[in-house]
Amino acid sequence: MFKQSAVLLEKAAQKVAYNIKPYKNMLKDPSKKYSAFKGPKLADRTWPNNAITKAPRWLSTDLRDGNQALPDPMSVAEKKEYFKKLVEVGFKEIEVSFPSASQTDFDFTRYAVETAPDDVAIQVLTQSREHLVRRTVESVIGAKKAIIHIYLATSDTFRDVVFNMSKEEAVAKATEITKLVKSLTKDDPKRQETQWSLEFSPECFSDTPSEFAVEICEAVKKAWEPTVENPIIFNLPATVEVASPNIYADQIEYFCRNISEREKVCVSVHPHNDRGCGVAAAELGVMAGADRVEGCLFGNGERTGNVDLITVALNMYTNGVSPELDFSDIEGLIAISEKCNKIPTHPRAPYSGSLVVSAFSGSHQDAIKKGFTKAEQRAATGDEAWKMPYLPLDPKDIGRNYEAVIRVNSQSGKGGAAWIILRSLGLDLPRTLQVEFSSVVQHEADNLGRELKSEEINNLFKKHYMYTGKSVITLEDYTSTKNKKSENNSREISALLRVNGKPVEISGRGNGPISAFIDAISKHFGIMFEVVNYNEHNLGSGNQDKAATYIEVSYLNSTGDKVNRWGCGVDNDVGESSLKAIIAILNDLIKKREIQV
Amino acid sequence: MFKQSAVLLEKAAQKVAYNIKPYKNMLKDPSKKYSAFKGPKLADRTWPNNAITKAPRWLSTDLRDGNQALPDPMSVAEKKEYFKKLVEVGFKEIEVSFPSASQTDFDFTRYAVETAPDDVAIQVLTQSREHLVRRTVESVIGAKKAIIHIYLATSDTFRDVVFNMSKEEAVAKATEITKLVKSLTKDDPKRQETQWSLEFSPECFSDTPSEFAVEICEAVKKAWEPTVENPIIFNLPATVEVASPNIYADQIEYFCRNISEREKVCVSVHPHNDRGCGVAAAELGVMAGADRVEGCLFGNGERTGNVDLITVALNMYTNGVSPELDFSDIEGLIAISEKCNKIPTHPRAPYSGSLVVSAFSGSHQDAIKKGFTKAEQRAATGDEAWKMPYLPLDPKDIGRNYEAVIRVNSQSGKGGAAWIILRSLGLDLPRTLQVEFSSVVQHEADNLGRELKSEEINNLFKKHYMYTGKSVITLEDYTSTKNKKSENNSREISALLRVNGKPVEISGRGNGPISAFIDAISKHFGIMFEVVNYNEHNLGSGNQDKAATYIEVSYLNSTGDKVNRWGCGVDNDVGESSLKAIIAILNDLIKKREIQV
Repeated sequence: MFKQSAVLLEKAAQKVAYNIKPYKNMLKDPSKKYSAFKGPKLADRTWPNNAITKAPRWLSTDLRDGNQALPDPMSVAEKKEYFKKLVEVGFKEIEVSFPSASQTDFDFTRYAVETAPDDVAIQVLTQSREHLVRRTVESVIGAKKAIIHIYLATSDTFRDVVFNMSKEEAVAKATEITKLVKSLTKDDPKRQETQWSLEFSPECFSDTPSEFAVEICEAVKKAWEPTVENPIIFNLPATVEVASPNIYADQIEYFCRNISEREKVCVSVHPHNDRGCGVAAAELGVMAGADRVEGCLFGNGERTGNVDLITVALNMYTNGVSPELDFSDIEGLIAISEKCNKIPTHPRAPYSGSLVVSAFSGSHQDAIKKGFTKAEQRAATGDEAWKMPYLPLDPKDIGRNYEAVIRVNSQSGKGGAAWIILRSLGLDLPRTLQVEFSSVVQHEADNLGRELKSEEINNLFKKHYMYTGKSVITLEDYTSTKNKKSENNSREISALLRVNGKPVEISGRGNGPISAFIDAISKHFGIMFEVVNYNEHNLGSGNQDKAATYIEVSYLNSTGDKVNRWGCGVDNDVGESSLKAIIAILNDLIKKREIQV
Repeated sequence: MFKQSAVLLEKAAQKVAYNIKPYKNMLKDPSKKYSAFKGPKLADRTWPNNAITKAPRWLSTDLRDGNQALPDPMSVAEKKEYFKKLVEVGFKEIEVSFPSASQTDFDFTRYAVETAPDDVAIQVLTQSREHLVRRTVESVIGAKKAIIHIYLATSDTFRDVVFNMSKEEAVAKATEITKLVKSLTKDDPKRQETQWSLEFSPECFSDTPSEFAVEICEAVKKAWEPTVENPIIFNLPATVEVASPNIYADQIEYFCRNISEREKVCVSVHPHNDRGCGVAAAELGVMAGADRVEGCLFGNGERTGNVDLITVALNMYTNGVSPELDFSDIEGLIAISEKCNKIPTHPRAPYSGSLVVSAFSGSHQDAIKKGFTKAEQRAATGDEAWKMPYLPLDPKDIGRNYEAVIRVNSQSGKGGAAWIILRSLGLDLPRTLQVEFSSVVQHEADNLGRELKSEEINNLFKKHYMYTGKSVITLEDYTSTKNKKSENNSREISALLRVNGKPVEISGRGNGPISAFIDAISKHFGIMFEVVNYNEHNLGSGNQDKAATYIEVSYLNSTGDKVNRWGCGVDNDVGESSLKAIIAILNDLIKKREIQV
């Protein structure tokens, strides 16, 4: 059995030169350069026992945090289109810009204020500096609902390295700016047409001692004087993700337990994805008490992105909880995101990637096929529960069809190609035919070195097994009659064929029309078939009046070996579809020069 | 201040037609179709208190689980190249194929067996069917270390829907196959040259009642008879990710606590990424007791991918723990992955994405600039700790340079462009020049509607501020002498310029050479400069003998307004670099037709 790999082994014997020069750049021991962030001590944490049972408030920051992270930021036209889509998806809070940064941002904010539905709050971000705050408030004047979002560095690294500000100075600054915002908004008698909210972000919370995060937020809360009806939003960003998501959850639970007047506070999470755990951080954060999640569609955003809100929302959905965001048209969202962000959606992005609902391997394809069959059976009894191997979400729910689900390459087994044939031609191949056909498909995929399209698989099947009326032998007509001379009800058949276009009449007899036809073939073409398998079914929807017949015959080939061969015929008449299946085999044998005509 | 947005507002007043047709496909209430998976009850879980303090065993399944999920699977040549790279990165366990599936897979397995270094174990996957197991064992005969990986469906959905197998039947089957593998491997006296290991996967573990997972693994362990030295590998795959990663961690901890002879068991996690939490599942799984992590580079794999081992490993690294995998050459890995998998690396992929170390926004750029300065100061005192705003990993550690870190578009502030100029031209611009130059850059980026390249930024700076020797006025020579007639040590200067190529001699006097030169210019060109700012520094590494001079002057322009203007000159001679800075301003004024020559 090693014979077949002889050439390969010979090559292998030429020793492979592994180029192992370890730690050219990485450090063998990184402990002096890097260390783990320590979260708050919280041995009595409760979040791991919680589940997410209702939708959080959502904030889209696609147009702000997302847009600022694009190599080529959105044009104003693109921002408008994107904003419209966010509203249509169901976002009620949208951070639209950093209006004090540029006239473009300011103008777009005005556009959003003027055009947003009344129940959509416009959020704007500003640094904690007086002239910027004034300009920011001006940008949203007249909005039905506006959220002024201020931030201040609270982590040791940010305070020390970037701002050179002590904790006391930070608290004083945050208080001062909060009071300024208050005086310019909810305390200003001329600006009462707007429902004003404040969002405060201690940055970077994920790297900030939890006690200090609570301390500075207490000061801000005191200065703002929130109400139960209109709570203050404390956004606790993982500005940079520095630890595993359970530690972030501990930080959130610590904050929720220690901030006073919890009922007047909306705790918001804003995970980035530096460690690839943004989604987990958002989910564990909500389990830990957060009321609100900030992020972007498809996880766009600074560096590794803001948390992907589509994934977080659809994770809830597949757990049976409505996210209150509507992704019925995922393809439309992908299109707008790729157009405006100019970043392609990864083919493996959860839920939205093009390869996500695709199964290439044979065993996966078989499992999904069986799953669909069972689901149809259960649906008939009113059981809607989605129990599909390998597919946590019904692709239909986000506007995708099933065609993408099963795809065929050289790694695929019999199930994949059979599924394609079933879905596109309506032919439910018998199991042994599936096995035989899969080797034809695998051979072709191996040869081409790539995935096969449905069309190509269909053509392969037609070429190898089907009567198509386009080969050497075609069937013009046939008559099957009871043999009156016989006592055992035998049949006589006479059939008009065309062989290379020329009419040929053949006739034979047998127990039934098939055996009679085989007898006729034997006499005329000199080959004796024995029927090994026979299957027949009506075609699926739209073709209920057509029958497909599959016949497997065995015969002795030119070298004297007994071989088996399948043929398939489709016709309105079951009798004719059987004859066509046999003629399909004949045509194949002509191609293989087993029969001469 | 609203005037500027008048046009915009007018357009906005044309009411935006929001196309809100909710729940066309998604269900408003998904609770009948979907439900949350319930993990084991584990109120006394310990994993949230644990940290990862040493590298797990790693298994790369790029060539198996990864390859089977590619639309266009790897060629044999690509598999060889990939295998070599995996060895070089440091993987000691590599799942290379499903050898019973095709001759190609079998042959490649032989290649891997023949060429792998002695300390690299070759792992092969097989279904639990006798003839496939026999073929699989044959594929690795002669290996120094081989791992036979068998799997069997254990989740309710898989057992019921796909295999129609009771729990008892599953246990019996798993036991039978384990005994078969044992008889063909470690019990076979002819096959003692190989260190044989067994990996058993209850599929899909993530959806399997934990009690049953333990039950079937106990049966397999009993049949295999592992030792402490060569433990049995129980792979507990999230074949489909069905719950948040804390639940997966609960399942792993439950398993670790309940499996007997724990010391003879290696618990392996194999997370997929259907909910975008594969990395978190791996990390929390290791915290919960797992000894081994299975996945692929860049998260390639079925559907949403297998867990990205690069991210898991570098997450450990940035926490100060060596992953014992070496990603010193991340660009090389990206290249080989994109070539062999034909799937591009996402620009926001953690650690490896092209945008990951990039900062576009002004405040981020400022912060990073300050971070680098502080780091240099700390490094001088022997403090190597990495404390960099926004950059959890030093890009150098994975073979990246800093050039990609700060990138400039219309969202960028002064810091970004200044950083580029510093890094590429060695010029450390004074703060007010940074502010002025950033508006030039922003204007250009806005105009082009895209990111600017370093080259473009450099050219903008040269064009607007620098003496380049290529403009209307150039400096040929100058002489500065003490004015002997004067009592207050004043200077006289005479300079030979070329104006449009023609020699022009000018001379003047002042307190020093600069004021003398300004005097000379005033006499010849009729414009009076007043020096407002003067900065000078040596150029950085490699150019220590050159000086850069920045001079800001104010003057009255043609409409009588007092305006300021920066110029920059570089020369070996500090005196000459000053004169060049002033000539740069002159040249700019000529371009602006403030001066006629």
